[in-house]
Amino acid sequence: MKLLEERILKDGVALNSDVLLVDSFLNHQVDMGLMQEIGREFARIFAGKGINKIATIESSGIAPAGQAALAMGVPLLVMKKSTSSILSEELLQTPVASFTKGSTYQLTTKRKYLSKGDSVLFIDDFLANGEAALGAARLIESAGATVAGIGIVIEKAFQPGRLRLIEAGYHPVSLAAVSHMETGIISFVESVS
Amino acid sequence: MKLLEERILKDGVALNSDVLLVDSFLNHQVDMGLMQEIGREFARIFAGKGINKIATIESSGIAPAGQAALAMGVPLLVMKKSTSSILSEELLQTPVASFTKGSTYQLTTKRKYLSKGDSVLFIDDFLANGEAALGAARLIESAGATVAGIGIVIEKAFQPGRLRLIEAGYHPVSLAAVSHMETGIISFVESVS
Repeated sequence: MKLLEERILKDGVALNSDVLLVDSFLNHQVDMGLMQEIGREFARIFAGKGINKIATIESSGIAPAGQAALAMGVPLLVMKKSTSSILSEELLQTPVASFTKGSTYQLTTKRKYLSKGDSVLFIDDFLANGEAALGAARLIESAGATVAGIGIVIEKAFQPGRLRLIEAGYHPVSLAAVSHMETGIISFVESVS
Repeated sequence: MKLLEERILKDGVALNSDVLLVDSFLNHQVDMGLMQEIGREFARIFAGKGINKIATIESSGIAPAGQAALAMGVPLLVMKKSTSSILSEELLQTPVASFTKGSTYQLTTKRKYLSKGDSVLFIDDFLANGEAALGAARLIESAGATVAGIGIVIEKAFQPGRLRLIEAGYHPVSLAAVSHMETGIISFVESVS
């Protein structure tokens, strides 16, 4: 997505070969006009797939996923990051390792918001190691629902997330895929969308 | 806001005199069409006040505040709940007690996203004891910015938040104000907006 790549080049900061700061427009201060364009792009990409729900993970996924839900006219399910494991018939949980924080959280949702027959699009702000997307897919499928797509705002294509998702049978679509970073330099995989 | 009150009566669940569950449309599964109407209502109420930024707190405030930011054409600042106190020139922090969780978090934002001269509208999903709104106001003012308004989606008017905000010089506007709850029953303060 040209608009997004241009914004990353303009306002994103590559701290080193691994850390990309986009908190001036995506995950701390948020440009909602850009989020609206991102939401419309996801709606265009995933049109006609019978999607009846969008899922994301709190809190940075909410702004882009919410705009996609609005553009597609479907509800948004916000999966929570719980620090504790809770045994309850009402809840679905799965452990997710966070590499950035060096810890593990319990990805949690109420069982009643995912049903057999639901066709769910998972949207997240970043794809790096794939842990969060794989965890979300586990929760969706444990409820008997289907992962109808995985949409990513920014993919760090030099990390193993895409490969792990493909090996698990998913086909993530990212709006911008960063191929390489060094301090002050950001390169993209040639854009397909 | 009639539409919101009707939705609370239809899908909200009063567990007891204190706990209102609205997680089927506001803070777990989110109806983005309703959030769009809420955002437009905030934009109408706070029009002409020179607001150039909206602030909220992760994660339940993001959906309604984001729609207000979109309707008003201003950036959204998402204040973070940090478990640790971090000494850094880059950050602003203030402790906020969470009554529902029985703990205290550090409300945190990067200093560079709040400037002297900013006229900030704070929007949150709930007003109960007022701790979160007062904490957000402290952060905004500690940066030399002005709190131009406080907008609340659902106020629990039987709790002391409004009084505490008024005593501190703020005038919160809520789209729905619950006056009384008991199991299965929800009453509203007579609607003004």
